[in-house]
Amino acid sequence: MKYIESVKNQKVKQWKKLLTKKERELTGTYLIEGFHLVEEALKEGDIVREVIVSIEAVIPAKFKLEGTEVTYVTNEVMNAISDTETPQGIAAICDQKKIRFEDLSSKKVLLIDAVQDPGNIGTMIRTADAAGMDAVILGEGCADAYNPKVIRSTQGSIFHMPVLKGNLTEIIGALKVQNIPVYGTALEKAVSYDQVEKSETFALLVGNEGQGVDKKLLAQTTQNLYIPIFGKSESLNVGIAAGILMYHLRK
Amino acid sequence: MKYIESVKNQKVKQWKKLLTKKERELTGTYLIEGFHLVEEALKEGDIVREVIVSIEAVIPAKFKLEGTEVTYVTNEVMNAISDTETPQGIAAICDQKKIRFEDLSSKKVLLIDAVQDPGNIGTMIRTADAAGMDAVILGEGCADAYNPKVIRSTQGSIFHMPVLKGNLTEIIGALKVQNIPVYGTALEKAVSYDQVEKSETFALLVGNEGQGVDKKLLAQTTQNLYIPIFGKSESLNVGIAAGILMYHLRK
Repeated sequence: MKYIESVKNQKVKQWKKLLTKKERELTGTYLIEGFHLVEEALKEGDIVREVIVSIEAVIPAKFKLEGTEVTYVTNEVMNAISDTETPQGIAAICDQKKIRFEDLSSKKVLLIDAVQDPGNIGTMIRTADAAGMDAVILGEGCADAYNPKVIRSTQGSIFHMPVLKGNLTEIIGALKVQNIPVYGTALEKAVSYDQVEKSETFALLVGNEGQGVDKKLLAQTTQNLYIPIFGKSESLNVGIAAGILMYHLRK
Repeated sequence: MKYIESVKNQKVKQWKKLLTKKERELTGTYLIEGFHLVEEALKEGDIVREVIVSIEAVIPAKFKLEGTEVTYVTNEVMNAISDTETPQGIAAICDQKKIRFEDLSSKKVLLIDAVQDPGNIGTMIRTADAAGMDAVILGEGCADAYNPKVIRSTQGSIFHMPVLKGNLTEIIGALKVQNIPVYGTALEKAVSYDQVEKSETFALLVGNEGQGVDKKLLAQTTQNLYIPIFGKSESLNVGIAAGILMYHLRK
């Protein structure tokens, strides 16, 4: 049994570095925490590199650990690598999915422009998964998909939903070449979302919490949509708007 | 000009107590923070009892302060009464709306059973406002509507959206007597949401993040609905589900 007691151990230092975006990008890995997320990741097969368990925690028998490296650690070590205030006692190191836009076989995609809140990004990945989208593409200015708060909000969808980073200008261009309608969300020069025909392939473009979608991107779309506000609120939360639209647009 | 320097001042102690649900219920008031929320509250007319401003903050000229008591305070006092780590320098004490279920003239309502996360409650109040609902009714086990995190998530909708507390069993009964359809959200004995006819009055019942709606309440509804999951995620966030359904069900 592998057991690490000291927070000064080289492996612990390496795990801890994964709390930074820089290290996650450098290594192509990320750290997840908690029983539910680790269980979901293990179900996916070849995502989990290693599992880290607090010496006081009990791994449920249903966890598919065959062939996976397990390291036991002290509570002190677990606290050091955790992003939460009360760690559950289990964590894992996972491989990031390597998917390119060109590799997507079907094209029902959610494009996200500069959404900064990790909870919003995570919830949109979860909703896109539920709505049967093929991929989520994060443009510039978005929170990192492998940020611990994003991962928690995805509730496990990060393990099966393809999430790519990309240049949205180029991607909108490529979608339009393939005759896939690209719907932006905007208040000006837009039609109500229920005026649009449902379709089997489409791209939905949503944007920053305060500023909305970048105007240059909106000028590139097939059509821009708005969701009517029937009451007095100024706007909808971007995750709510994305949910309403993804479910409405799909055939 | 009223000016308070000491955190030991009786008024400061009283303001600070409003961070507790108990004191909010006792006084029928609540505390809001930040320029956007205070501006929105002032627009509503007779909600704001008094405005509290840090001596270093500048109140924008557009704020409708006529007739409203303003007290200046030190940064130390502002920090003491604030729920945020970096207070914006402005706060206000507001009156809670006193609305009874019987007083609602129209009946398009969102019923919430035991949703604990303040962000989810706040987002649902904001979305209910946008979707033109007449009221949000919080059953037992819900986060307090006047919790600072709920208020922030409503983005100001708390000032114009009637939010009531109530016994959901009694309210569902009363709605049914009035022939208003009550739709629960559930996975069993339910139909897909798009099978339901849109209507001008309806009640939507959503429930706890993990457990869903209480079974006893589900047994009382006119019809229970589910939102299909087309991908691999286990469920939708309750706020997203409520958003999709409120927009879908309204005529």
